[in-house]
Amino acid sequence: MIEVGIVGGTGYTGVELLRILALHPEVRIRVVTSRGDVGKAVADAYPNLRGYVDARFVEPSIEALIECEVVFFATPNGTAMRMAPVLLDRGSRLIDLAADFRLRDPTVWESWYGEPHACPDLLTEAVYGLPEVYRERIRSARLIACPGCYPTAVQLGLLPLIEAKAVRLDHLIADVKSGVSGAGRKAEIPLLMSEAGEGFKAYNVPRHRHWPEIKQGLQDFAGEAVGLTFVPHLVPMIRGIHATLYAELCDDSIDLQQVFAQRFAHESFVDVLPGGCHPDTRNVRGSNRCQVAVHRPLSGRTVVVLSVIDNLVKGAAGQAVQCFNIMSGLDEGSGLQSVGLYP
Amino acid sequence: MIEVGIVGGTGYTGVELLRILALHPEVRIRVVTSRGDVGKAVADAYPNLRGYVDARFVEPSIEALIECEVVFFATPNGTAMRMAPVLLDRGSRLIDLAADFRLRDPTVWESWYGEPHACPDLLTEAVYGLPEVYRERIRSARLIACPGCYPTAVQLGLLPLIEAKAVRLDHLIADVKSGVSGAGRKAEIPLLMSEAGEGFKAYNVPRHRHWPEIKQGLQDFAGEAVGLTFVPHLVPMIRGIHATLYAELCDDSIDLQQVFAQRFAHESFVDVLPGGCHPDTRNVRGSNRCQVAVHRPLSGRTVVVLSVIDNLVKGAAGQAVQCFNIMSGLDEGSGLQSVGLYP
Amino acid sequence: MIEVGIVGGTGYTGVELLRILALHPEVRIRVVTSRGDVGKAVADAYPNLRGYVDARFVEPSIEALIECEVVFFATPNGTAMRMAPVLLDRGSRLIDLAADFRLRDPTVWESWYGEPHACPDLLTEAVYGLPEVYRERIRSARLIACPGCYPTAVQLGLLPLIEAKAVRLDHLIADVKSGVSGAGRKAEIPLLMSEAGEGFKAYNVPRHRHWPEIKQGLQDFAGEAVGLTFVPHLVPMIRGIHATLYAELCDDSIDLQQVFAQRFAHESFVDVLPGGCHPDTRNVRGSNRCQVAVHRPLSGRTVVVLSVIDNLVKGAAGQAVQCFNIMSGLDEGSGLQSVGLYP
Amino acid sequence: MIEVGIVGGTGYTGVELLRILALHPEVRIRVVTSRGDVGKAVADAYPNLRGYVDARFVEPSIEALIECEVVFFATPNGTAMRMAPVLLDRGSRLIDLAADFRLRDPTVWESWYGEPHACPDLLTEAVYGLPEVYRERIRSARLIACPGCYPTAVQLGLLPLIEAKAVRLDHLIADVKSGVSGAGRKAEIPLLMSEAGEGFKAYNVPRHRHWPEIKQGLQDFAGEAVGLTFVPHLVPMIRGIHATLYAELCDDSIDLQQVFAQRFAHESFVDVLPGGCHPDTRNVRGSNRCQVAVHRPLSGRTVVVLSVIDNLVKGAAGQAVQCFNIMSGLDEGSGLQSVGLYP
Repeated sequence: MIEVGIVGGTGYTGVELLRILALHPEVRIRVVTSRGDVGKAVADAYPNLRGYVDARFVEPSIEALIECEVVFFATPNGTAMRMAPVLLDRGSRLIDLAADFRLRDPTVWESWYGEPHACPDLLTEAVYGLPEVYRERIRSARLIACPGCYPTAVQLGLLPLIEAKAVRLDHLIADVKSGVSGAGRKAEIPLLMSEAGEGFKAYNVPRHRHWPEIKQGLQDFAGEAVGLTFVPHLVPMIRGIHATLYAELCDDSIDLQQVFAQRFAHESFVDVLPGGCHPDTRNVRGSNRCQVAVHRPLSGRTVVVLSVIDNLVKGAAGQAVQCFNIMSGLDEGSGLQSVGLYP
Repeated sequence: MIEVGIVGGTGYTGVELLRILALHPEVRIRVVTSRGDVGKAVADAYPNLRGYVDARFVEPSIEALIECEVVFFATPNGTAMRMAPVLLDRGSRLIDLAADFRLRDPTVWESWYGEPHACPDLLTEAVYGLPEVYRERIRSARLIACPGCYPTAVQLGLLPLIEAKAVRLDHLIADVKSGVSGAGRKAEIPLLMSEAGEGFKAYNVPRHRHWPEIKQGLQDFAGEAVGLTFVPHLVPMIRGIHATLYAELCDDSIDLQQVFAQRFAHESFVDVLPGGCHPDTRNVRGSNRCQVAVHRPLSGRTVVVLSVIDNLVKGAAGQAVQCFNIMSGLDEGSGLQSVGLYP
Repeated sequence: MIEVGIVGGTGYTGVELLRILALHPEVRIRVVTSRGDVGKAVADAYPNLRGYVDARFVEPSIEALIECEVVFFATPNGTAMRMAPVLLDRGSRLIDLAADFRLRDPTVWESWYGEPHACPDLLTEAVYGLPEVYRERIRSARLIACPGCYPTAVQLGLLPLIEAKAVRLDHLIADVKSGVSGAGRKAEIPLLMSEAGEGFKAYNVPRHRHWPEIKQGLQDFAGEAVGLTFVPHLVPMIRGIHATLYAELCDDSIDLQQVFAQRFAHESFVDVLPGGCHPDTRNVRGSNRCQVAVHRPLSGRTVVVLSVIDNLVKGAAGQAVQCFNIMSGLDEGSGLQSVGLYP
Repeated sequence: MIEVGIVGGTGYTGVELLRILALHPEVRIRVVTSRGDVGKAVADAYPNLRGYVDARFVEPSIEALIECEVVFFATPNGTAMRMAPVLLDRGSRLIDLAADFRLRDPTVWESWYGEPHACPDLLTEAVYGLPEVYRERIRSARLIACPGCYPTAVQLGLLPLIEAKAVRLDHLIADVKSGVSGAGRKAEIPLLMSEAGEGFKAYNVPRHRHWPEIKQGLQDFAGEAVGLTFVPHLVPMIRGIHATLYAELCDDSIDLQQVFAQRFAHESFVDVLPGGCHPDTRNVRGSNRCQVAVHRPLSGRTVVVLSVIDNLVKGAAGQAVQCFNIMSGLDEGSGLQSVGLYP
């Protein structure tokens, strides 16, 4: 059994980690921290975990975490980078579900996150936790930067097109829609059901922090600069991300379905739907799967890719556990076999 | 008082017409037809109308409708075109909320609607009921083709850009999201709450009937061919359409906010939000308003327009009544003054 | 035109008052206060009101309000009672949508609201704003205590049974369900869409502040003590209250449908549905109506009354305007004619 | 591995059986029938099952099912009773998720289900599949009648009170609320999202088929007649049942919390919440758990029990698999260990 700690166990990604790890056959949850709920039983805060998780919340301290072989950070941005150097020194391996290690350039990081990075030297060591691209590097990593939820859906959807050089790179569009849990468990007016229910809107159109992360990722796939427009929207549902991706085809003769099918043929968590299908976020709810479909409306030159994930699973906690499995030499799907909850 | 008839009073656009017309100060609802509910009191079928609408459903016959000065068709596609010639001959004016008269070219119509058009000669006479563009022609029209819900949101959002020649026309993208009432009141599995709730998906990506209608409209604005990609999505809410529109700017120096503000300065049902705002479908729910905002993410060359309407009001019944008011020489906003129902 | 002020214009009942009063033909909104948003345009905070409400929020001060003939308090509990004495002295008439004047006994008030009442002498003067029972007293009142949302639905549902002495009074049960807007516009975790959506629960079962208010009301109807169990629940929708009311019949031969029909025959805002019907909150959404139905399951001795309202309209702002109309000698339905927003 | 068949694999209880059984370590799904989808791959119809279920739908015939050791019927009422005698004769064991074998008295069955029972002799042999009461009989049963969803929530909530003789039996009230998936996957107007979303209503108040089933069950617990009022409601969510149960206490001194805790101390799928808690359907979503709490509002004589389940799991497919495990000598929780999907 591998002993793990979870820093920040009260946000949605933290609770989702608990839900997944509670049934993981190779894991013992040793520490769960929460500054605000110290002493409280985890299962009192989250009654769905009654009988599955016995832990009580403790203070997030190095001492508490030092015995953990792997520490997951499900904390607000800016937390993991303050504890990472010491924990790594003492031999823990870290998986950060926040944004602290996602951007390689500390200047870019600072301009988007509003403070200097606390350990810029670790930015280059950190491995971006997208197994479909970086599996080998994840295997031996000490520090994983789990991709954001939007970046996961967008990158997996555009990856085959970019690798196959099938599309123009200067005018990529990602119109992405997220359920409200993506905004986290924060007491804010716009997230109230009375505000977010029965309505639909875009937000942060002028700029959103996932833009530089996606752009960096796509450029890594392409080996050159890309032009990206990214528009996020809020959907009146709890879980799910749907990315609708637009690109202009370079070559009319390419078999797009084939490109996608081949690229993900050996990926157990990316499922390419047959031609003509439209993925629905409901079919991946609670599962670690990305379902993806590729279209050419009216047989024109615009490619439309539809990519769906559960933002809390493949977009956060599930992907973190997938990385954990890889790092730990376990079966990559260990603890991640749940079927999407339909209806 | 103007005597009106409603053909097809049991679908959502029909019921919405009844809701609006019941309180219209210049209208008497004389006839409401429904093949399936003949003899039933309208208010028994729709308890929200108890005390507001006294009528009973009758058979949809020429005889029943002949006394009506204006006849609204809130019927499935293919119905109005069969009754229109006779009713027009006998002196009624018609407002069709379905698609029968939206496309000018009968060949195009047939290829998208799967049967020959029943009265192709009327296609050129019909006036497209988008008052912000065709107000003068609506004033004297005998036959109005009300725009579809998606086409209304998309055209109003792109109109200022096209008229101002601000954007390239060959690569317009309309990523549009609709509440489920847009699919109508039909007993179909995919519209069940268990299927459409708590999920999000695109549909009809290969082709959708609103594509030729939008394209025809945009080309009329532009006076030349346009390239359009149109992707509709289903949102787990009842009312509302949100169009996210992408175009590439021709001229960096243009003041987009100004272009929009000026174009709609005298339009009482199009409300241009201040710079930096994001419209929300909830704010126009139950109202005849289009709220629109224009953005340039990261000050780049891609323009993003956000355009929201209530699909059943400005996207159907409200716009029909707006046309009716114009045709009838009434105040354009008569009966249409309701404020969006927030929260 | 009657000049009115609204204290607390940023909560849901305040915004709903604005929505209704903006179109009220006899009202000019002179003052809207909000401690947190002083100087901000009301329509910037609530874009649905753009073009309908020009006011800016001001500090809630006696000076600002003193020119208003009628002042509405849409404030948290404990606010109106601090300003009421001075405003009444200076000649304003007050309508409180909060709980400050709903309970007649200051000791009871204190035990449920956790502080001594600031002006206990006004408790007896205040008139309970349920027009169906207290219309005549409302006509000449200076100070109206608008009923709570739950109490409105429950009292209107039980009123005919109690007045007709049709049921035992010692064991009344009110199982009541509310949309989330009933909890107000407060940044609290349990009201997030991620928490309140796609779930259903009871809350405050041990005790809820509406219990003494309902009990006082029912005892006034009965002229004697009643035994009441009241259990509130949270429904994953925004607007609407559904009360399911249980009582044991005293007399088997009574025609319950008749009792209800007669009691509300002249009430324009209470609509008794025909026998066998089930009211749906959707049919009164946005309207000031209570729809009610009475059943005897399996013809047994238990009477079940189903009573629905929109909590923000008949359960708050609409009922306040109804009282305002009565107090002001206007048509009781002035400004309140909207049809329920279906679908 | 035990070979099982599922008759009626396209309804929600059928798909849920597939979701659970696909990951059950001791089961091989041999046959899945569907009259309407013969030849279609199960995973094409339900993309959440892609990669988990390889079967194709076949005709529901005795021949197809005869090799299955256990056959689950997830069919409309009236189907299982026509196939049961032959299948039992040939040695299969049957688990019916519909109502065919729930009522012991064929006359009562006929009066509620509108046709004579096809094999009344089997009614007495069938074992009611509520493991918390009938575990020993289930162990050796050939034919299981799985309880309805409402009956499961109500019976588990009232069981401890009745067994402890804590309450009067002549006036029990069950006010029960269900998500829309409880109505099944049927193309009917009232189940559309536009009809069932954002609204709340009671239905079938005069009579509902679960009333005789619940009454029979409670009388079995009590050993005497009970008086029951049962009112079902439709909640705008997909999964979940919340029963609010009212009874009058016989004995003031009883420790209700203790009664519940003891009754379910050894039940792994009934979780008694601590005093003062309110269960939420969300916490059992996707799980086989019933969470239950007991209250005495204002310390009065009325007991209020709150009981929640996922209608498709503990209220249908999960309970069926629990019975299957017991019948098959497996661990009772095999395949049923999923944690409730929060948020």
